[in-house]
Amino acid sequence: MNSNEEIVRENREEEKLTKAKLLNLLLRRQYREIRDLTSDMHPADVAEILENLDENNRLVVFRLLKKEVATEAFTFMSDESRNDLVEGFSDAEIVNTLEQISLDEAADMLEDMPASVVKRVLAKSSRQTRESLNKLLHYPEDSAGSIMTPEYVRLRQNMTVRDAFRAIREQGEDAETVYTAYVVEMNRLIGVVTARDLLLNDPETPITELMDDNVISVKVTDDQEQVARQMQHYAFSAMPVVDAEGMLVGIVTLDDALDVLTEESTEDMQKMAAIVNSDATASYFGTSVVQHAKQRIPWLLILMLSATFTGMVTEHYETTFASLPLLVSFMPMLMDTPGNCGNQTCTLMVRGLALGEITAKDFLKVFSKELRIALMVGAVLGVVNGARIYIMYDLMMPGKYEHIIIYAIVVSISLFMAVILAKLVGGLLPLAAKRLGADPAIMATPFITTIVDAGSLIIYFRIAGILFEGLV
Amino acid sequence: MNSNEEIVRENREEEKLTKAKLLNLLLRRQYREIRDLTSDMHPADVAEILENLDENNRLVVFRLLKKEVATEAFTFMSDESRNDLVEGFSDAEIVNTLEQISLDEAADMLEDMPASVVKRVLAKSSRQTRESLNKLLHYPEDSAGSIMTPEYVRLRQNMTVRDAFRAIREQGEDAETVYTAYVVEMNRLIGVVTARDLLLNDPETPITELMDDNVISVKVTDDQEQVARQMQHYAFSAMPVVDAEGMLVGIVTLDDALDVLTEESTEDMQKMAAIVNSDATASYFGTSVVQHAKQRIPWLLILMLSATFTGMVTEHYETTFASLPLLVSFMPMLMDTPGNCGNQTCTLMVRGLALGEITAKDFLKVFSKELRIALMVGAVLGVVNGARIYIMYDLMMPGKYEHIIIYAIVVSISLFMAVILAKLVGGLLPLAAKRLGADPAIMATPFITTIVDAGSLIIYFRIAGILFEGLV
Repeated sequence: MNSNEEIVRENREEEKLTKAKLLNLLLRRQYREIRDLTSDMHPADVAEILENLDENNRLVVFRLLKKEVATEAFTFMSDESRNDLVEGFSDAEIVNTLEQISLDEAADMLEDMPASVVKRVLAKSSRQTRESLNKLLHYPEDSAGSIMTPEYVRLRQNMTVRDAFRAIREQGEDAETVYTAYVVEMNRLIGVVTARDLLLNDPETPITELMDDNVISVKVTDDQEQVARQMQHYAFSAMPVVDAEGMLVGIVTLDDALDVLTEESTEDMQKMAAIVNSDATASYFGTSVVQHAKQRIPWLLILMLSATFTGMVTEHYETTFASLPLLVSFMPMLMDTPGNCGNQTCTLMVRGLALGEITAKDFLKVFSKELRIALMVGAVLGVVNGARIYIMYDLMMPGKYEHIIIYAIVVSISLFMAVILAKLVGGLLPLAAKRLGADPAIMATPFITTIVDAGSLIIYFRIAGILFEGLV
Repeated sequence: MNSNEEIVRENREEEKLTKAKLLNLLLRRQYREIRDLTSDMHPADVAEILENLDENNRLVVFRLLKKEVATEAFTFMSDESRNDLVEGFSDAEIVNTLEQISLDEAADMLEDMPASVVKRVLAKSSRQTRESLNKLLHYPEDSAGSIMTPEYVRLRQNMTVRDAFRAIREQGEDAETVYTAYVVEMNRLIGVVTARDLLLNDPETPITELMDDNVISVKVTDDQEQVARQMQHYAFSAMPVVDAEGMLVGIVTLDDALDVLTEESTEDMQKMAAIVNSDATASYFGTSVVQHAKQRIPWLLILMLSATFTGMVTEHYETTFASLPLLVSFMPMLMDTPGNCGNQTCTLMVRGLALGEITAKDFLKVFSKELRIALMVGAVLGVVNGARIYIMYDLMMPGKYEHIIIYAIVVSISLFMAVILAKLVGGLLPLAAKRLGADPAIMATPFITTIVDAGSLIIYFRIAGILFEGLV
């Protein structure tokens, strides 16, 4: 049996459809073969192959797929390739797809289409679909409403487990999940019951006995990342969403929450790296060179021009380093190291805020913690660097430079102070941003670098001025 | 009804247990009240309150909780506070907890305990628990094996839907999920069937008709992040795990995958910010000042000492800036801007590699893309900065400095070339790291900054030397 199984497995490997094989089949017009091969594959894998094709071939292959395969693969495709595909669709194809896929996916699809097309397509859709979509399209971007689906299983409180199973069978085909059902009375959510509870209990049990009436829900306007983090906190597979009046309007499922968290992490990383990106779901290769340049230039320009101030600091101290040119050698280290210190702290803040471990109110706690860390880090770095300078210049090339011990002391003290400045700025700026309703990630890495650079150089030249006074 | 509901809601708010209220109850020895209040709460919220208590109170309150509440809250606590708690446990309490919680949680708990305690505790556990735990403890950290659970629902291929429901009822109590069941023959996984399929079909349907026999699984040694990304790719709520012989040994569930992805994102961010952290699940406030300092100092030291080379570059050109001191003013901008450029690219690489959008083989594709982006970005930044210098110095303070137009040209060309260097280094170093089996995030931000800094200054002083030759 073992070797038989292996042969089966190998055969399967051979049957596996790659992009090259697909293009080959397409060239030889073996459409039947494409249809058959894709119908055994997981739709996520079909979607991946479709994404790797150019736009023309993508549409051709998509139209060759079996209906169910096409619809399922469609829901697994990225927004960008989905939009490309839809551009080639006829109106009838768009309407058809809208009716097949889940309502939250349909709303996503319409959001990226021109208003005129949306209007035309909605007019041709079924009344029910049109009404639901119109509602979904009105929720603000990044809100719970924008990622929820109104398709869930509704139960009534007088039902038994047996009734509940019947209800699931009736509503389940369209529902996003059948594993969590919601007990609703007059549109108000009064309890939650899981399929697990239903499966593990007697058919005659009243669901009021099984349901959890201590319901946890989110508001339709809540931020999508907060909703996803709450689902992670409670280990929920679905989260009910209520409107301002407390009426149940939809649910958010865990797969969507997972995508939100991935997207938000990507967005935070990009912002911390000074990238302006309105769509963090777009892939690196899926973004054109011009778009990449557009995303990167704005902050680079701002930061480049703000580094002018750091330059002006050095102009101010021109006479100092004209007489002590060795001071310039330590400038790169004195800008990089505190910059790195600030980034460390800032990254911890941005992530801690995103995960809810740190709140904007923790100002004093962060201040005191970072101050103590900075004292330690600054002392270690200051002493090591002082020793490094003394050893390198005084012991290894004696007599080349004068007053090396003073240079060492100047650099040590400057570094110590600059590290403290950097850790405090890196810790408090993101919190301040959050408190002012701004995005803490924007305050990050390069912005802090600029502030810390100028600060470090001022400290450095001041201390040099004081300690070298009268010596040169 | 509306106002009644509101009153109920308000009462609930009042009943909500906060840390302050809990401490107050503890002080007044109202243990009964604590027990009652916590039994209505979601265990994740009980866990959160426990985490905020100091170690002594935590143990006292934990022991006051109802048994089920305590066990459930325990599984929601962070590793760190769980370990603190367990340190105060008697052996009997540890054994009891081990038997109650799921096997993957139990294995996590034992992993952090001293070997002698593990041995003693395992000896006192039931044979079944001991054997399973012994197996789980042998899988490498960060492998699929380390996050999987051996508790899943097993079906046989000759069953009907009705039989399957019976099997779920029998095995479901201990299983991590009842929503995906695995059809197994001789320990080999031959099909997967979801509770959704079972719920929506007739009780007499043979499960071979419903099951998907095109099974997708991962190996027990596969990397946990890859496993989680695959689950996201396929929108799976559970992923089967097989051993080297292809035998089904466990499943990974989506809530664990979600935690893995959050942890790995945090880890990547920290590494990119030059933080050495062996436990990315530890919170900011849950980490002591000394630990924070230890996590931050190593890379700062390495980078500080490597910035020495950048310093040596400037020493080499001492005569150049001694005669042209204005050159020093542009140094901060010429180090920061290319550094920022490199970070942008590097961040996109690290994230793209983590999400599987970019692979280590894409060397040439990344090279050509980044080169084209860099040409655009470099041109824009170079021209803007050249113009800025000309306007600031020649028009706004005429006569103060000589040869301003040459300074502007030197800075423009240097910036243009440095941006290209930075984008290529930032793009290719992470890929090279990945190819060599190292962590791409380690190559990140500050490391690239150091390389780019030195490169930029060499370009700058070289070009200045050439263009100013014979003029000063």
